[in-house]
Amino acid sequence: MADGQPARTTQRHAFDLATAVRGGPRSWTAQVDPGWTIGDRPNGGYLLALATRAALGVVEQPHPLAVSAHFLAPPATGPAELEVTPLRAGRSVSTARVTLAQDGPPLLEALVSAGRLQPDGPPDWQRAAGPPPLPPVEECLPGQPDQPGGTRINILDHLDVRLDPATAGSFLGRPSGRLEMRGWVGFHDGRAPDPLALLQAADALPPASFELGVLAWAPTVALTVYLRALPAPGWLACVLNGQLWRDGWFDEDAAVWDARGRLVAQARQLAGARRPRPA
Amino acid sequence: MADGQPARTTQRHAFDLATAVRGGPRSWTAQVDPGWTIGDRPNGGYLLALATRAALGVVEQPHPLAVSAHFLAPPATGPAELEVTPLRAGRSVSTARVTLAQDGPPLLEALVSAGRLQPDGPPDWQRAAGPPPLPPVEECLPGQPDQPGGTRINILDHLDVRLDPATAGSFLGRPSGRLEMRGWVGFHDGRAPDPLALLQAADALPPASFELGVLAWAPTVALTVYLRALPAPGWLACVLNGQLWRDGWFDEDAAVWDARGRLVAQARQLAGARRPRPA
Repeated sequence: MADGQPARTTQRHAFDLATAVRGGPRSWTAQVDPGWTIGDRPNGGYLLALATRAALGVVEQPHPLAVSAHFLAPPATGPAELEVTPLRAGRSVSTARVTLAQDGPPLLEALVSAGRLQPDGPPDWQRAAGPPPLPPVEECLPGQPDQPGGTRINILDHLDVRLDPATAGSFLGRPSGRLEMRGWVGFHDGRAPDPLALLQAADALPPASFELGVLAWAPTVALTVYLRALPAPGWLACVLNGQLWRDGWFDEDAAVWDARGRLVAQARQLAGARRPRPA
Repeated sequence: MADGQPARTTQRHAFDLATAVRGGPRSWTAQVDPGWTIGDRPNGGYLLALATRAALGVVEQPHPLAVSAHFLAPPATGPAELEVTPLRAGRSVSTARVTLAQDGPPLLEALVSAGRLQPDGPPDWQRAAGPPPLPPVEECLPGQPDQPGGTRINILDHLDVRLDPATAGSFLGRPSGRLEMRGWVGFHDGRAPDPLALLQAADALPPASFELGVLAWAPTVALTVYLRALPAPGWLACVLNGQLWRDGWFDEDAAVWDARGRLVAQARQLAGARRPRPA
């Protein structure tokens, strides 16, 4: 990758512009884009895609297989530096560490193991032949960039999110009481999904903690995504499930299925949610 | 932590001796113990506990909350160096990076976010009130350090593993065909479980890929464990489930429940399994 050139930015869609990295091979610069925020905080999946794009500019493998990030503090929008440290170069897997900072202490650190996802072919074994039933896209609730509470969700100008009404009760004052959220995810500008987009989609729905009645930012401590196959063009079905909320922390699993009903990504995060004080 | 002193090694059980680290605060040394291997490879959960003990010697927090490791190459038994880099010191969460090496390139890198687990109290919400039903310990199959195939599983000299017969078919030539494994885990010397032991327990059962008929070492690419509560004394119930095996990779979730039926740890790993060639 020549100096000063963007790494693996082959399309001119909003997501690719917002995750562009320059420089390399070890030290990259990027702009944390104000278009991919919730309130004033950049989305975690967006940051994961940004960090992974820098890593892919260094390792000699085309696709992320497993990306594990710990979030240290929310970056501001604007210039950021990404330091990539190669850890291993292998025939089937290469691994690098990425540290994101903004002229100060690290804000995010990620381990990226990369390899080659296969274009197609049947799985050797799978638990489920497809995602759980979701209503058709047109019967789901479109994500609203302008929330009644006043928070601007800029990322919804770019991400086309359609929530299953069965798990969107928190937006109508009737949370389901379960750590569950389901919906469809795509890009408004029609960009096709690829592994970097799956990193974004794995953290695109509102936090499942909303359905526990906690309508607040859920700070992510750790987020890991496994990429399992190259996604087909079309909508992604995202299914969030958590097991336990205690002591201010909850877990959230995301399964991402492509338009052909294949499991293409699996994510898990540990995030914070405090029980609201009685009024 | 004074120089030359072991970090947080408060008990003289085999597990604590095998995960002892010396030196600090940034550079630690340890012995990768030959007693915690499968064949000639150290167990992944054991290595995770070793790395986390070094991190806890540096961060000002008592317990791991989330530990994410990428495995670069299997360490040999014998001396190892662990380099700990503090990334963030916070009131509720502090994070450090640990790099394990043996006089050469990194072999394992881990991100450890630590905080304080609460001793008790009910969860705010939980999906399941306890683990799925497991047969009583005495009706389960004890793990055998000496395998018929000749591989010595030294770690079973220390870990008391009892497999649910329903998911142990692979040892009798009748694998279930599903990515599932269940069993009880304890220490032969009676050491009580704590968060470090949970890191070990989360990777203590045979790989679920055995039940797909792949009776081979399953190299772990990435392993993340969330610690959710301080475990009660007694047996740990470990429940493994995977979703997908394709292109040589499978995912494996581990839920660890304590003797009081509380979910105390959640793990997920991406590991390799190749379909055996027809004879």
